[in-house]
Amino acid sequence: MLNVVFGGEKMVQLYANERIDQLYADDIKIIQSKEVFSFSLDAVLLANFPRIPKKGRIVDLCAGNGAVGLFISRKTNAEIIQIELQERLADMAQRSIQLNDLANQMKIYTADLKDSLAFVAPDSVDLLVCNPPYFPHQPQSVKNPNPYLAIARHEIHTNLEEIVAMSSKLLKTNGRLALVHRPDRFLTILDAMRRQRLVPKHVQFVYPKNGKDANILLIEAIKDGKEEGFKVNPPLFTYDEDQAYTPEIRQMLYGN
Amino acid sequence: MLNVVFGGEKMVQLYANERIDQLYADDIKIIQSKEVFSFSLDAVLLANFPRIPKKGRIVDLCAGNGAVGLFISRKTNAEIIQIELQERLADMAQRSIQLNDLANQMKIYTADLKDSLAFVAPDSVDLLVCNPPYFPHQPQSVKNPNPYLAIARHEIHTNLEEIVAMSSKLLKTNGRLALVHRPDRFLTILDAMRRQRLVPKHVQFVYPKNGKDANILLIEAIKDGKEEGFKVNPPLFTYDEDQAYTPEIRQMLYGN
Repeated sequence: MLNVVFGGEKMVQLYANERIDQLYADDIKIIQSKEVFSFSLDAVLLANFPRIPKKGRIVDLCAGNGAVGLFISRKTNAEIIQIELQERLADMAQRSIQLNDLANQMKIYTADLKDSLAFVAPDSVDLLVCNPPYFPHQPQSVKNPNPYLAIARHEIHTNLEEIVAMSSKLLKTNGRLALVHRPDRFLTILDAMRRQRLVPKHVQFVYPKNGKDANILLIEAIKDGKEEGFKVNPPLFTYDEDQAYTPEIRQMLYGN
Repeated sequence: MLNVVFGGEKMVQLYANERIDQLYADDIKIIQSKEVFSFSLDAVLLANFPRIPKKGRIVDLCAGNGAVGLFISRKTNAEIIQIELQERLADMAQRSIQLNDLANQMKIYTADLKDSLAFVAPDSVDLLVCNPPYFPHQPQSVKNPNPYLAIARHEIHTNLEEIVAMSSKLLKTNGRLALVHRPDRFLTILDAMRRQRLVPKHVQFVYPKNGKDANILLIEAIKDGKEEGFKVNPPLFTYDEDQAYTPEIRQMLYGN
């Protein structure tokens, strides 16, 4: 720990390569690091996708530096439990929880998500959110030489099937799983969900701009839900014709 | 037959309740009837969705008054075979084929699609298009009292599973099925396709306007295709903020 920084009333320590960013829309400060992990737009989209229960229990799997759970925290009094495999990232999340004075509401565990039941009772979760590694693990594939980023992006230590299976175990009946992922994995995601008693209820596609194929998929499934009423929500565009964020995205990032 | 009408060089006979409409974008005249069958925007969307092979064989199942095959005919030299169960509708299509001088390229059979192999060889089709009945057949459900429209809209005489199974039989390896349907049947469509060796490759969602859920789904699958590279194509909007057709839809309807 090299620096001591005051964030409002709170004091946290930062490593040399870390900075504090702010998500203005939700008034959240978050510790980031280019060398280790920074949240992406995908985390912001996920935090804005599902209806957030006002109370109960929310779990954030593959939590990274805690972005999704932190962004959601302002919209709910629910307990938020985060699970992250990489100690270095979980440590950033832990300090962001302190920085935002959320220790009474949020908790992060450094653990393999396969061990989630050690921290969260089965059938107890109202909403589970996950921004998982997107890319299948192919040993021969080119990965980011930075191991933190490689693990966050590739299915090296977990995969879709494991994530969905654990989500189903943790969720209550009628509890919901909200996932952000890539459209090219869409069919695999649907298969995995339905194998695990999770019924896909609605999707939203995010397009980089008008006229382009979707590059982000948001999907919500209900545990033991009915196989009816599947909906495709209004499309979101990231950028307008001038390469500026669209009003919808600006609202999520800056609150205006 | 009550009227005799000249359409360009061609003479066709019309029933009293029939009219000739024109799809300007493709320079096609089509016999319609409010009491029997009129094509919808869905047929136009479907005709504009798949890449149209320049030669070979195209089949249009649930052809109705022949709209989809007629619209496609201007973009290809392929043989186009249409199959329609309702004799009254197939008769309208037959006269539209004459009206547009397409008898050398197009043929319509009045038949149950389950009997398609009597008219089309198995594994011989390059592209199969279908604008099927959208609504599951529930004997107790309220249907259009007009039997022509009820059969065209409800799965009374066929269903998704049958359509997809027959499509798969007719298509060549790497032949393509392009379907227009409703988004709430999306999961069922994917299941049916995959049970019949048809691998979904891309979808396009059509939204009535910005900010609304999708109300039309376009999907293309390849027979014995690879389970990779699924794409979600750019969204289409039917109406703009002033309730006018968007430029994309105007282009399909009017060619400008």
